[in-house]
Amino acid sequence: MEAKGISQAVIGRLPRYFRYLGELKDEGIERVSSQELSDIMQVTASQIRQDLNNFGGFGQQGYGYNVEYLYEEIGKILGLDKEHHLIIVGAGHLGQALVNYMDFERRGFLFRGLFDIDPKIHGTRIRGIKVRPMQEMERFVKEKEIDIAVLTVPKSVAVGVAEQLVSYGIKGIWNFAHVDLHVPKGIQVESVHLSDSLMKLSYNLSSYDGQIEVE
Amino acid sequence: MEAKGISQAVIGRLPRYFRYLGELKDEGIERVSSQELSDIMQVTASQIRQDLNNFGGFGQQGYGYNVEYLYEEIGKILGLDKEHHLIIVGAGHLGQALVNYMDFERRGFLFRGLFDIDPKIHGTRIRGIKVRPMQEMERFVKEKEIDIAVLTVPKSVAVGVAEQLVSYGIKGIWNFAHVDLHVPKGIQVESVHLSDSLMKLSYNLSSYDGQIEVE
Repeated sequence: MEAKGISQAVIGRLPRYFRYLGELKDEGIERVSSQELSDIMQVTASQIRQDLNNFGGFGQQGYGYNVEYLYEEIGKILGLDKEHHLIIVGAGHLGQALVNYMDFERRGFLFRGLFDIDPKIHGTRIRGIKVRPMQEMERFVKEKEIDIAVLTVPKSVAVGVAEQLVSYGIKGIWNFAHVDLHVPKGIQVESVHLSDSLMKLSYNLSSYDGQIEVE
Repeated sequence: MEAKGISQAVIGRLPRYFRYLGELKDEGIERVSSQELSDIMQVTASQIRQDLNNFGGFGQQGYGYNVEYLYEEIGKILGLDKEHHLIIVGAGHLGQALVNYMDFERRGFLFRGLFDIDPKIHGTRIRGIKVRPMQEMERFVKEKEIDIAVLTVPKSVAVGVAEQLVSYGIKGIWNFAHVDLHVPKGIQVESVHLSDSLMKLSYNLSSYDGQIEVE
């Protein structure tokens, strides 16, 4: 499959296609036109066709898309046909919430270990997963072939922990600390900045109150 | 202050300016040039000038930006000079994690109540905030002038709960359920789709492995 030069904007929309196609599949729907997808996803049919054409050959004129096939193919493009092995660094409330979110496992994101600096919780288990001291992280990452680390540590230590993780061979960081991480080429970082999202909501509330027009 | 017609892309970048300016302020730095900001934020100086020019009159040729003033002004634009009153609907792990995140309170986002369908946890408190039955939500929202509801309920019930909240007068929904909410005009929704973010990371890991070039 040809997938060169796909923009991050298109990539960012793929999980949403995947979600809607999964829902259609669960409803037993076998095919869908770009117009029907457009209606339920509230994006233009032309955008859908353009996005999916990046990956070539999914649709058939006058037939539409085969739901299951498209769902499976987008899953493969997203790398969901492979298992990922994750650790969570920072076993606080957010780390625990993520471990308890079953949807990730269903998609092949398997939590292998939890790490925390607090000796009081070392050895305890969250949904069966043991909380370990930071000192064990290097060996664990290397032995268990961990590819993704979820960073739910305070901002003040996040940069240092990220550097450690990269030196241990971690390829992907899912960053929840409220700081931008600068990592070497070849390391992927995806950040979820919750405060930024809440501030954006606050802006939109204020500007609507004040009748400021937004493009 | 002129703030009409600001695009969502600019708005989306404001919290990041706010964060960096806050850090400079905490370090006691009084002024900063767009070039210095550019270096630490890793965006172009021209983008910074363009973004901030949307709001008019912050910089002075040859002087740069007054850090504290710019920080305060961006805070006002983001609506952070006002208090927001929030409820969390869904007192599971994620809801609890959000209540425990002190940064939000510091920014004026005050959690007033938690709601859940599980009678076993009604009356318990999380960081002092009582968990209440869903039946009390309407009265609570109206009496306490709640403006933002945080949705941390399962996907299957999120749409129904969002409709209820809107009918009670909620103006903003911070949505963590993995579903798109379609709300009446004038209601603001900001969604955090954690699974989408993790899938994007997975894509970038796969495409880098396979040496697929990304724009």
